[in-house]
Amino acid sequence: MASNRGIAYLEPGKTEVQDIPYPEFELKDGPGVNPDNVGRPVPHGAILKVVTTNICGSDQHMVRGRTTAPQDLILGHEITGEVIETGPGVEFIKEGDICSVPFNIACGRCRNCKERATGICLNVNPDRPGSAYGYVDMGGWVGGQAEYVLVPYADWNLLKFPDRDQALAKIMGLTMLSDIFPTGFHGAVSAGTEVGSTVYVAGAGPVGLAAAASAQLLGAAVVIVGDLNEERLAQARSFGCETVDVSKGPVPDQLEQILGLPEVDCGVDAVGFEARGHGEQASTEQPAAVLNSLMDVTRAGGGLGIPGLYVTGDPGAATDAAKEGSLSIRLGLGWAKSHYFVTGQCPVMKYHRGLMQAILHDKVDIATAVNATKVSLDEAPQAYQDFDSGVAKKYVIDPHGMVS
Amino acid sequence: MASNRGIAYLEPGKTEVQDIPYPEFELKDGPGVNPDNVGRPVPHGAILKVVTTNICGSDQHMVRGRTTAPQDLILGHEITGEVIETGPGVEFIKEGDICSVPFNIACGRCRNCKERATGICLNVNPDRPGSAYGYVDMGGWVGGQAEYVLVPYADWNLLKFPDRDQALAKIMGLTMLSDIFPTGFHGAVSAGTEVGSTVYVAGAGPVGLAAAASAQLLGAAVVIVGDLNEERLAQARSFGCETVDVSKGPVPDQLEQILGLPEVDCGVDAVGFEARGHGEQASTEQPAAVLNSLMDVTRAGGGLGIPGLYVTGDPGAATDAAKEGSLSIRLGLGWAKSHYFVTGQCPVMKYHRGLMQAILHDKVDIATAVNATKVSLDEAPQAYQDFDSGVAKKYVIDPHGMVS
Amino acid sequence: MASNRGIAYLEPGKTEVQDIPYPEFELKDGPGVNPDNVGRPVPHGAILKVVTTNICGSDQHMVRGRTTAPQDLILGHEITGEVIETGPGVEFIKEGDICSVPFNIACGRCRNCKERATGICLNVNPDRPGSAYGYVDMGGWVGGQAEYVLVPYADWNLLKFPDRDQALAKIMGLTMLSDIFPTGFHGAVSAGTEVGSTVYVAGAGPVGLAAAASAQLLGAAVVIVGDLNEERLAQARSFGCETVDVSKGPVPDQLEQILGLPEVDCGVDAVGFEARGHGEQASTEQPAAVLNSLMDVTRAGGGLGIPGLYVTGDPGAATDAAKEGSLSIRLGLGWAKSHYFVTGQCPVMKYHRGLMQAILHDKVDIATAVNATKVSLDEAPQAYQDFDSGVAKKYVIDPHGMVS
Amino acid sequence: MASNRGIAYLEPGKTEVQDIPYPEFELKDGPGVNPDNVGRPVPHGAILKVVTTNICGSDQHMVRGRTTAPQDLILGHEITGEVIETGPGVEFIKEGDICSVPFNIACGRCRNCKERATGICLNVNPDRPGSAYGYVDMGGWVGGQAEYVLVPYADWNLLKFPDRDQALAKIMGLTMLSDIFPTGFHGAVSAGTEVGSTVYVAGAGPVGLAAAASAQLLGAAVVIVGDLNEERLAQARSFGCETVDVSKGPVPDQLEQILGLPEVDCGVDAVGFEARGHGEQASTEQPAAVLNSLMDVTRAGGGLGIPGLYVTGDPGAATDAAKEGSLSIRLGLGWAKSHYFVTGQCPVMKYHRGLMQAILHDKVDIATAVNATKVSLDEAPQAYQDFDSGVAKKYVIDPHGMVS
Repeated sequence: MASNRGIAYLEPGKTEVQDIPYPEFELKDGPGVNPDNVGRPVPHGAILKVVTTNICGSDQHMVRGRTTAPQDLILGHEITGEVIETGPGVEFIKEGDICSVPFNIACGRCRNCKERATGICLNVNPDRPGSAYGYVDMGGWVGGQAEYVLVPYADWNLLKFPDRDQALAKIMGLTMLSDIFPTGFHGAVSAGTEVGSTVYVAGAGPVGLAAAASAQLLGAAVVIVGDLNEERLAQARSFGCETVDVSKGPVPDQLEQILGLPEVDCGVDAVGFEARGHGEQASTEQPAAVLNSLMDVTRAGGGLGIPGLYVTGDPGAATDAAKEGSLSIRLGLGWAKSHYFVTGQCPVMKYHRGLMQAILHDKVDIATAVNATKVSLDEAPQAYQDFDSGVAKKYVIDPHGMVS
Repeated sequence: MASNRGIAYLEPGKTEVQDIPYPEFELKDGPGVNPDNVGRPVPHGAILKVVTTNICGSDQHMVRGRTTAPQDLILGHEITGEVIETGPGVEFIKEGDICSVPFNIACGRCRNCKERATGICLNVNPDRPGSAYGYVDMGGWVGGQAEYVLVPYADWNLLKFPDRDQALAKIMGLTMLSDIFPTGFHGAVSAGTEVGSTVYVAGAGPVGLAAAASAQLLGAAVVIVGDLNEERLAQARSFGCETVDVSKGPVPDQLEQILGLPEVDCGVDAVGFEARGHGEQASTEQPAAVLNSLMDVTRAGGGLGIPGLYVTGDPGAATDAAKEGSLSIRLGLGWAKSHYFVTGQCPVMKYHRGLMQAILHDKVDIATAVNATKVSLDEAPQAYQDFDSGVAKKYVIDPHGMVS
Repeated sequence: MASNRGIAYLEPGKTEVQDIPYPEFELKDGPGVNPDNVGRPVPHGAILKVVTTNICGSDQHMVRGRTTAPQDLILGHEITGEVIETGPGVEFIKEGDICSVPFNIACGRCRNCKERATGICLNVNPDRPGSAYGYVDMGGWVGGQAEYVLVPYADWNLLKFPDRDQALAKIMGLTMLSDIFPTGFHGAVSAGTEVGSTVYVAGAGPVGLAAAASAQLLGAAVVIVGDLNEERLAQARSFGCETVDVSKGPVPDQLEQILGLPEVDCGVDAVGFEARGHGEQASTEQPAAVLNSLMDVTRAGGGLGIPGLYVTGDPGAATDAAKEGSLSIRLGLGWAKSHYFVTGQCPVMKYHRGLMQAILHDKVDIATAVNATKVSLDEAPQAYQDFDSGVAKKYVIDPHGMVS
Repeated sequence: MASNRGIAYLEPGKTEVQDIPYPEFELKDGPGVNPDNVGRPVPHGAILKVVTTNICGSDQHMVRGRTTAPQDLILGHEITGEVIETGPGVEFIKEGDICSVPFNIACGRCRNCKERATGICLNVNPDRPGSAYGYVDMGGWVGGQAEYVLVPYADWNLLKFPDRDQALAKIMGLTMLSDIFPTGFHGAVSAGTEVGSTVYVAGAGPVGLAAAASAQLLGAAVVIVGDLNEERLAQARSFGCETVDVSKGPVPDQLEQILGLPEVDCGVDAVGFEARGHGEQASTEQPAAVLNSLMDVTRAGGGLGIPGLYVTGDPGAATDAAKEGSLSIRLGLGWAKSHYFVTGQCPVMKYHRGLMQAILHDKVDIATAVNATKVSLDEAPQAYQDFDSGVAKKYVIDPHGMVS
């Protein structure tokens, strides 16, 4: 029981499975741990046996070498697990509970947590508001692509599934509650999606597909997904979305063919700073391309939900401006159309309970929508490479073979 | 009664008083009138004897030659007047009513108007959603810096003051309901101002001062106004604001001296695309300077209200990007702080009734806050020049000498 | 073309088809017309050829003799029609448009309309805020269970369907946009229904079924409908609702069997003042029974949406208190649970466009959910009687045989 | 240091100062402690030296004998104190912090707390959602009208004042943050008070006065307070409210004299179930009188905020219905006017931070508005009697003589 294994980042393009320490109720020193967090006691924590843990597009930013992530950083912030042990400060979460872990670590005691803004908790990351497991510059909480993981502030953070057997039966959907389902949902909600809306989601990766499924769940009349990757677009069509291949001509024209209008009510940016151009600029990065396109196709008065990640610094960017996180945005266009823009990490806790209910009562099949695909811990490094190649799959690591 | 006079734009830097046609219930051809609007019948309109009409910072964009405004365009979108005559389609507004005219012309019959988004009415401007009197590319509705003006869709657009004598007695405040008071208020509201908030307003022009007074009215704990112009900062201090001279060192440092913290809860951009740099770049335009600064000083989770105007095209801009309305924005910073951004024309009708009540019951003295200063129609061209020089005054034109 | 026929209320329990005047652009005197409305010009109106017009539960209140409705009142406030002629003040609605008519008549020019509260328009009913076609004490606007009907303020009130053929093809669903679909939706929304909610709808009549379908469209995890009428409960089950027969034991116990908990997140009262008791009190009216039961079964912090009609006076009520519209409500229970309560006519315009989109794009099959059943104008008196007997049908009158 | 003294309820009309145990980090057995709470460990708690603790109108319900409160129950739920000692589970609150204690005890770990509904926390009261210190049927947490008190879940519940000296200097205002200021504010907010609103507050006791001051802070144009007690009405006038003596004629008539209209935008019930009639019924209790009056005077579309307490059982009530918490409410009137109603304990944590900022920055003088009056612990029993007699004072107990 005292052994543990996890996925470590080695160098650009490379991860491997390593033996790592079994969690204790203290944040020990290690790769990427903020000095001010070293030795931090975690009596409010719970140790989880990881049931499932997913590979995320934002993990890829690190693995591609686009960040300052140190070697041997243990990855993984999309975690679902069974509680094995709780610290002395845990009162309501119990051994044996199967729980979803929001990727954003939160203390439940600061102003922001009290205001439901758990994505920018003030007490978990000495560098700045907000934190996550297994992520560079996020305080150093050990990642959960592992057999066991420590979850701090367990009573606050964990969402307990009501029934163990039911949870294991639906685990391939429930595992999406830790990040991409709420994140996509947040994108759809913050773009203003309501019953009857038309919604354009830029990006058909897992977050984009989750945003599209969320828009459907919210009652959208038409959900359209745009991407350059035909396999991912086919995945979007598989659950009832319309699609736009952005390499095949201007997006407004394609929207007009679908809707009779070149604009939608709501726009979701599920791409972020690694956006690439299309047409002649297809191979260049154009970090503002998606946002500028969304302002073009979103109706006056509409909203732009921006769950796609934009970073404060991007050493590998193509231009000096982009290296500093500056983008050339057609703000004048957005202003003329009275657009509003919602950015930032999704505060998972605001949404995960309702989405869990929707999964448990079969109102949404998020596992199928994102093409959840199980791999073992040892297969995970290969899955990282496959995911990077653009396959239309969401990889779910099953470290203990608990998923049937 | 059939005569009329108004302020015309002549050439960059120059306006004059001209004889112009007395309004009829039809939109006639003239400088800047969209061909599709020429001859448009206006049976739903009212003809107003202008009681007051203010000079606005956005008029200055045209007068400075920063737009494609044609010669002889009659200016003026901040109008308060007495109803002289109503068209056959007007049912509730009556002759003798003294009314505030929202600067955004709206039909009251399209989807956006029905959703209270009167700033982007679909039926009044053939070019795009949204319109205003006396403004370039806004459909061609004749401006109200004149003796008489036509207001279309009078039952929908006009806000009647409950009592004539009371209205005339408080007219220097009430005249701000047509634009800058609601616009500033919209900035404060959309930045998330609540009871107890700390608010930073960038820009101490009339809209910035109105935003500051609005933040106070909303119960803000501390309102801080930043500008380069000491006279305008003194005006802000005169009604209880704290101030920051942005040429005197980094804004966060100055905020820290005032608040004990380098950040505020809410940020308002009351400057817009004509932002100038400070320090060494003081003489250069830096259209993204204000927004980037606001992201810096607004706390994680805070909002940015952006009533300051950003344009889709700016022929006189310093860079090619800015000419197309593109700005180099540190979006990565905003994203890391989970900021949201609200842009666009203020939908005046959403706010003007409540603000009127606040003025009539002496809860706010907006006339004093913005230093409302009366001039005659003939003095208006000079007032344009004075305002452009940066005096801390809001000029109110009184074409008929009705203001005591 | 100058002839017209409509359904008149004769006496308790009795309606008949009568020859009635063809509409003009003026509100003429007639049964139930408020004297202050007689002779009112309606240049802003449109004359519609009625495509469909539905019988509503609230019509039954009049036909049962529970109101002071006068003899020969022409009934009908659920109207969908084709525009035949428009008054001189109509600008955007055109001849040939097929439109839904919100049951609440609104001027589009008063404070309440400007705030989207079209259910309490200040300018259409001299007696009090709010109006409807063909209804007692609502100003006297002639009902639409007829061949032709006048719709005032047509540009404001009418919702145009985008395509004529598509509209006629889906007319049995679209006809529900005039009242019960938005009304049920308003009940679900104002009860706080969100993705993942559990919802209890009291009453399986058409409004209850529409509320249940709306809750599903909003993403509710579980929707439970309660009634005494097994046929109506079967109808609810036909589209995926759970049901509770309130005569078969305490509602909390039955909810517990379904949910594992005796409480739901959201409660909807789709019954109103004519609630009957159950068990031993089954034959007595107990106007507060539904509300008290909803407070019992709605969780602390939950909301109660109350689209069911409560009246200010009910001459036929069982008790003196009920005759005055007073009910014995367990408010202490609601207070202890921090409930909130939303009452009143649904402001149809707030919802009908989105719901139209949901119907047109096949996101909801409201016609099937409420068991829409077509009858001719001549069959309508019989349909009134059948509906009163409790059949699980929503009757749609097709005066011109336009529905295939 | 191990001694403690507190105010105990003895019998109807009588309280006394008693020696009581010094708090430990465990909820011990005692008068009114729920058996399921006895022995509950409180490692997350803090022991506070009480700086101020106020007498509340809801304490009076117990002292008047209107509840089943047991003899020797230690009273007091309005507490401000200095942290003396913290349990091992407390991480951010420190010894020496001066803090406001929300009256509603909350765990910060249940669904309701996570949704900001701290007034209905699921984990602190075995009987039902929601709890408070020193109150009957609230789980048995010992009251704070004492020298020392235990506050559970200290990191979650406590609001730390930023500066000790500043806090002590403004303590007579800050002490209202534990209950009546947020409670009155919640009433004003939930009634829909906005900038420019007209607001009628029924009841000029401390909560009513706090609601009135809150409405002013929110920017209301006119705030009108109604009561039978002339001394309390004079208190309301002292800070700029208009007043209505409800014994001097119909409320709508009096409103019309003030406003020119018989209705207001927003109604606040700051009385609750112990409402008395006026005019001929002045001596009788009429628990529904206030609510029915508020529906009468609140405009169509307006909201009713109901911070006044309504109880599930009232053994001392005048009628059988009232004994069960049932009230004869004119719901039909409210429905016709599309009113909404918000009930329940104020979730203090939602508001106290912003209100603290407003006090610290002198935007509101709540101490003066409610006429805060300091007494010693030994004077508190007399203060209970004086308060019951209707004096226009809010009594603040100062157990350690720390208030200057």
